[in-house]
Amino acid sequence: VLTVDLNSDVGEGFGVWVGGPDDELLGVVTSANVACGFHAGDPTIIRRTCAMAAERGVVIGAQVSYPDLAGFGRRFLDIEPGELADAVIYQLAALAGIARVEGAEVRYVKPHGALYHAVGHSPQQSAAVGAAIHAFDPGLAWLGIAGTAASTVAEERGLRFVAEGFADRAYGDDGRLVPRGQPGALITDPATAARAAVTLGRAGVRSICVHSDTPGAVAIARAVHRSLTDAGLTVAAFA
Amino acid sequence: VLTVDLNSDVGEGFGVWVGGPDDELLGVVTSANVACGFHAGDPTIIRRTCAMAAERGVVIGAQVSYPDLAGFGRRFLDIEPGELADAVIYQLAALAGIARVEGAEVRYVKPHGALYHAVGHSPQQSAAVGAAIHAFDPGLAWLGIAGTAASTVAEERGLRFVAEGFADRAYGDDGRLVPRGQPGALITDPATAARAAVTLGRAGVRSICVHSDTPGAVAIARAVHRSLTDAGLTVAAFA
Amino acid sequence: VLTVDLNSDVGEGFGVWVGGPDDELLGVVTSANVACGFHAGDPTIIRRTCAMAAERGVVIGAQVSYPDLAGFGRRFLDIEPGELADAVIYQLAALAGIARVEGAEVRYVKPHGALYHAVGHSPQQSAAVGAAIHAFDPGLAWLGIAGTAASTVAEERGLRFVAEGFADRAYGDDGRLVPRGQPGALITDPATAARAAVTLGRAGVRSICVHSDTPGAVAIARAVHRSLTDAGLTVAAFA
Amino acid sequence: VLTVDLNSDVGEGFGVWVGGPDDELLGVVTSANVACGFHAGDPTIIRRTCAMAAERGVVIGAQVSYPDLAGFGRRFLDIEPGELADAVIYQLAALAGIARVEGAEVRYVKPHGALYHAVGHSPQQSAAVGAAIHAFDPGLAWLGIAGTAASTVAEERGLRFVAEGFADRAYGDDGRLVPRGQPGALITDPATAARAAVTLGRAGVRSICVHSDTPGAVAIARAVHRSLTDAGLTVAAFA
Repeated sequence: VLTVDLNSDVGEGFGVWVGGPDDELLGVVTSANVACGFHAGDPTIIRRTCAMAAERGVVIGAQVSYPDLAGFGRRFLDIEPGELADAVIYQLAALAGIARVEGAEVRYVKPHGALYHAVGHSPQQSAAVGAAIHAFDPGLAWLGIAGTAASTVAEERGLRFVAEGFADRAYGDDGRLVPRGQPGALITDPATAARAAVTLGRAGVRSICVHSDTPGAVAIARAVHRSLTDAGLTVAAFA
Repeated sequence: VLTVDLNSDVGEGFGVWVGGPDDELLGVVTSANVACGFHAGDPTIIRRTCAMAAERGVVIGAQVSYPDLAGFGRRFLDIEPGELADAVIYQLAALAGIARVEGAEVRYVKPHGALYHAVGHSPQQSAAVGAAIHAFDPGLAWLGIAGTAASTVAEERGLRFVAEGFADRAYGDDGRLVPRGQPGALITDPATAARAAVTLGRAGVRSICVHSDTPGAVAIARAVHRSLTDAGLTVAAFA
Repeated sequence: VLTVDLNSDVGEGFGVWVGGPDDELLGVVTSANVACGFHAGDPTIIRRTCAMAAERGVVIGAQVSYPDLAGFGRRFLDIEPGELADAVIYQLAALAGIARVEGAEVRYVKPHGALYHAVGHSPQQSAAVGAAIHAFDPGLAWLGIAGTAASTVAEERGLRFVAEGFADRAYGDDGRLVPRGQPGALITDPATAARAAVTLGRAGVRSICVHSDTPGAVAIARAVHRSLTDAGLTVAAFA
Repeated sequence: VLTVDLNSDVGEGFGVWVGGPDDELLGVVTSANVACGFHAGDPTIIRRTCAMAAERGVVIGAQVSYPDLAGFGRRFLDIEPGELADAVIYQLAALAGIARVEGAEVRYVKPHGALYHAVGHSPQQSAAVGAAIHAFDPGLAWLGIAGTAASTVAEERGLRFVAEGFADRAYGDDGRLVPRGQPGALITDPATAARAAVTLGRAGVRSICVHSDTPGAVAIARAVHRSLTDAGLTVAAFA
């Protein structure tokens, strides 16, 4: 039986500002990418998010980012690789310590936003992230896109790399994501997303992401979960 | 034989801005209060500071602070106790994780600046810091002034409280520090500081602080270390 | 005929995080307290907010704050008066320059959050804010609570002080606000708030605040505006 | 008689952290590039720096930057052009308002660090900076490298562009700066820098920059000033 994970970004508020529908999403997903304070999240939000994830048995991953609250980590930053590695370790450490206080632990890493894209093609930045993960805890999995600089670095470092697909994003004929901003790039119809997820799951993708800021994210996540189960796949965390 | 520790603040730069004479101080002190990024310190500085401390066998403590880079943590912030506790855990976790990567570990906590003063008299803020330390690692010692709210909370929490004295600050007849800004509050003469340190050490103070931003801090620290040794005390970390 | 102003806080998002219902509020209020980037607001949000206010003929005021994005300016900060004055000038200048680019101008100042309360009782902090306003533009009005340190300083500085009341907050028998957190402190029923506003307006209060984060703020503002007009008062900006 | 300006970066501290030798530099240069708070500088430092410049009759320029205190504005940030323009206006406005309070005014703009380089080659980012300067005050001059995207945009916008050269940096045979990090890129010998400055001044370069963080910056600036004068050039601000 094929097993597939469902992941989403949570804990993406800051101070008085709220993030996505974490409470509902954590009732559906099996893995939670928790913001660590560099693009979103503050100590109190992080702790509350870890407590919620722990209570529901959702596995916690570190959603590490460039230091860029003003830009929500969505802007490429030409940071020195050594400084990037240190920033990733800092975030991993902060999240892991808070998770532990809440009786949970961090089991994987998913770079966020512009860093997610950068580790897909930049040898320097992916190497920096790989070095950071390896130095902090070589038992952590790395969630990302297969066949990229990230997966190459993970392999070289002996890190477990878990390939993910996106239920709420369209793929072109070349198998790559249709860039945001192009027509049809975003899938907001739960049924369409659910079908896409089943296709991805049957193709062997180990984790499926539903973006928490996609309109109707909770409905999409629920439809995806149901369809995967209906299609005979087991929905369970990978880590 | 009496044993006394020598502590100083290190890692207090940020980005391009340098802090104190860490390299030289770490050659003299036995305990290093490492800034965790909230009043000073960034991931790269923290990592480098931990590496330097580890290399020289200096024990690492977490110098936790209000979130206030612009004010260097020297301004009282009326933060909610729960949020303060979370902020302290975040800092402890970040520093502990980086220290571990460098082969070291965090063994004690010393609140910084305005928080140092606040935990001396505010029941709420001292309780928050105590809760944070206890939640993160009840084996951590708490460095502060004896007979304050901080020491009371530490006792209630079952945390080891270590009393410190200041070699470079004058004490009034009431046994309290002469406030900064008053004439003679700051002792910059190494010989005078050294004599004061011997008096403190003989009185049973377990750790002596030399502020890294006192003019001539390195000379003071060296004079203090030498005088303590000459007076027959053992200079060694408490943690 | 009595004239009364209606003011509300706007521009209180940051980066991807949204603030209140600015678009709708700016269709009702006559004065907009625009966040300047220290507790909320970033350059793009500030510019867009100024453009919206200018387009609708809403008068712009500077909602100056302690530097505290993480705490939304709601936490008292024991900042040096000189540094507070400089921070206020920086915010006034930034907002005024952006407003000018959008064809508008800043006509008054309303301290935000914890600073609003501090200037009500702290002689040092109110003096600092008064010095800043006077230095930047002595023609700016100061919006606040009558009979406080703020109004005293304004008088001493020769600044126009405009007294405000709150439609969505209960007043005790002593004429002071019932503290937030106490039962009944917050008024969320539009009709009740509207009646309170009419009472305040008839009592000579020159500006009435509807908090943009009170649940149902837009409905409250609309009810207040309608009731004031129905009661024969003229709703118009004070500056 | 040829006239040449001498410019340097000042006000580049933050909070307790000090920047360069501003006091001495402001006694030598004719134009001061004042940091606006995004890569360095805080309200108090900005005000003090403006006061010092005003007292000595040094012309003030705005040293605008990416929002990146942690990286001192030296890291490329892929910010949206519209957001960059807004950020530049915010900085110009803040500095101009503070300068006015100190009896001075901002007369030119010099992008800082990575933004300085980006406006040299990025059509989008140079257009954004040009739009910001034009919107805020089309009378401001733009200081940068001749023959770049920056000078092109300035011309299109009708902004005065002032070409600068560097006394403390080596130029290759192609007339371009030898990249930092390559051997000989930095000139720290005052006499060598002074000769280079005379050559630049005679070639018609209107402003010569001495970096405030080059070792011996003050001695270099003094030597450059003296040599220019000895060579019969007039040292005076361009704005």
